[in-house]
Amino acid sequence: MSATSPLSPPPDAEALLTRHSTTLHSYFQSALARYTAAPPRLMESIAYSLYAGGKRLRPALILESCRACGGDASAMEAAMAGAAAMELIHTFSLVHDDLPAMDNDDLRRGRPTNHKVYGEAMAILAGDAMMTIAFELLAETVPSPTSVSMIRELAANSGPCGMIGGQVLDMDGETRRLKLDELQHLHRLKTGALLTCSCRLGAIAAGVDQQMLSRLSDFGRHLGLAFQIVDDILDETSTPEQMGKATKKDAAKGKNTYPVLLGLEGSQAEANNALAAALDAITPLGDRARPLEAIARFVVERTH
Amino acid sequence: MSATSPLSPPPDAEALLTRHSTTLHSYFQSALARYTAAPPRLMESIAYSLYAGGKRLRPALILESCRACGGDASAMEAAMAGAAAMELIHTFSLVHDDLPAMDNDDLRRGRPTNHKVYGEAMAILAGDAMMTIAFELLAETVPSPTSVSMIRELAANSGPCGMIGGQVLDMDGETRRLKLDELQHLHRLKTGALLTCSCRLGAIAAGVDQQMLSRLSDFGRHLGLAFQIVDDILDETSTPEQMGKATKKDAAKGKNTYPVLLGLEGSQAEANNALAAALDAITPLGDRARPLEAIARFVVERTH
Repeated sequence: MSATSPLSPPPDAEALLTRHSTTLHSYFQSALARYTAAPPRLMESIAYSLYAGGKRLRPALILESCRACGGDASAMEAAMAGAAAMELIHTFSLVHDDLPAMDNDDLRRGRPTNHKVYGEAMAILAGDAMMTIAFELLAETVPSPTSVSMIRELAANSGPCGMIGGQVLDMDGETRRLKLDELQHLHRLKTGALLTCSCRLGAIAAGVDQQMLSRLSDFGRHLGLAFQIVDDILDETSTPEQMGKATKKDAAKGKNTYPVLLGLEGSQAEANNALAAALDAITPLGDRARPLEAIARFVVERTH
Repeated sequence: MSATSPLSPPPDAEALLTRHSTTLHSYFQSALARYTAAPPRLMESIAYSLYAGGKRLRPALILESCRACGGDASAMEAAMAGAAAMELIHTFSLVHDDLPAMDNDDLRRGRPTNHKVYGEAMAILAGDAMMTIAFELLAETVPSPTSVSMIRELAANSGPCGMIGGQVLDMDGETRRLKLDELQHLHRLKTGALLTCSCRLGAIAAGVDQQMLSRLSDFGRHLGLAFQIVDDILDETSTPEQMGKATKKDAAKGKNTYPVLLGLEGSQAEANNALAAALDAITPLGDRARPLEAIARFVVERTH
């Protein structure tokens, strides 16, 4: 790998993720407490999925991208709102993705999926509501015009040319074998868009120029690719206990994955290349980008 | 009714709704044309529901509220974006509401429902995407800080304390007989929130002060109530051919409706009272509010 000239050792990624996750949890608690006029069971269903844990990778990327771009205290506040909005969008997509009409999953993050606990109708509505809360939160909390840029960025990357578009391609892909470039396009939308968007949101919150924004975009794009390849590898090599969700589903469904197309070793090599490219993009940021580096390495080296 | 001191005859509401609907249709066509990188079938599914027609009551309320508040050309452009965003949110809510896990409807606006044509998974994703497009459109098109106010207004009224919250209450209400005040609360959220929000969005686009905004809120709130009562009456007295959707569903499901609680005549009287209160609120606006008056009368006097 070319992209390592360590100025200081990168921080411990898991500790960093845990710290951000704890902050986010408190943030959610006060953000959701405002909805006193809402039906309690709806808020319960939202909280069930939102507090289920997960790595909170995207919020950490937003916060650390903002810090890496030299964001000050008020920029970090905007990034925090962005982190919460992003996790709301990500969680809504998981809740809808798990529905019987979609992936029909019973288990998510080691617990029964939302619709298994609250029923399908509530899971659909809870997902819908998480999206409205995400945009309301940004409009309410972040000063204009930064709020508008963040909302546009998040909406565009969640929509038909982003995450939701990727879910449609994924659905279509179950009926035929995709070529490598089709698979890459699918993942650029399905998981790549929101991961790249996370890095960009942090940079936007920090008020950076176009050059810096494009660095963070490059970092996010390569990291998104690495993330997906490793996800595919883990689906094939891990147990449900390790992953907190069903595994080997991809193969069972005849889904298109990197291991299917490139083999396990080829996939690992491709993930390492993507990591190197991601680190290259942020090398010029120096020490401030160490936490981002730590997160990137964690993404590729994780075992669950 | 107290609220009629006609300065000029109100315009023909149906002609007015048709004219706004035609403008909106063209607006949608160019707005959706931007999503060239999206999966074509997703955009097709979105267009299917978006172009299915309907009265386009909410967009007309936004545009005419803006005009009634003296909005200039650029205000009317912001209102147009608001109209499109509102109709996207309204249509997404219908698509999700029709799903088998929710109301399980086969017919909407005289055509098969979205999931009957595109399948459940696509209908869920198309609904989700309509919401992201709505917020992207506002952030992209309307100048800041008006865009932020409009996004906050739309998100808050679509969410847990607005339309989605109302759908949850409606779902819960199917299991027991509601009292009148509970039914009113349900409708204030389920249909009232977005109708009131429409009037407010037009006023916000026009850049009005708090007093004017509160006038338009009052108009919208009373109109929302009138709308729902008439909807309940029509569900009981109309044929599916007239309504373009299944009728008498409410009674069949043992749903709580105004006719059940107040009788048909009592319900009609209540609708007339609400109309009078709505018109009272906008009387001070004079001639400029004639189109709003026409729409309000149409809502109460319509037969489908």
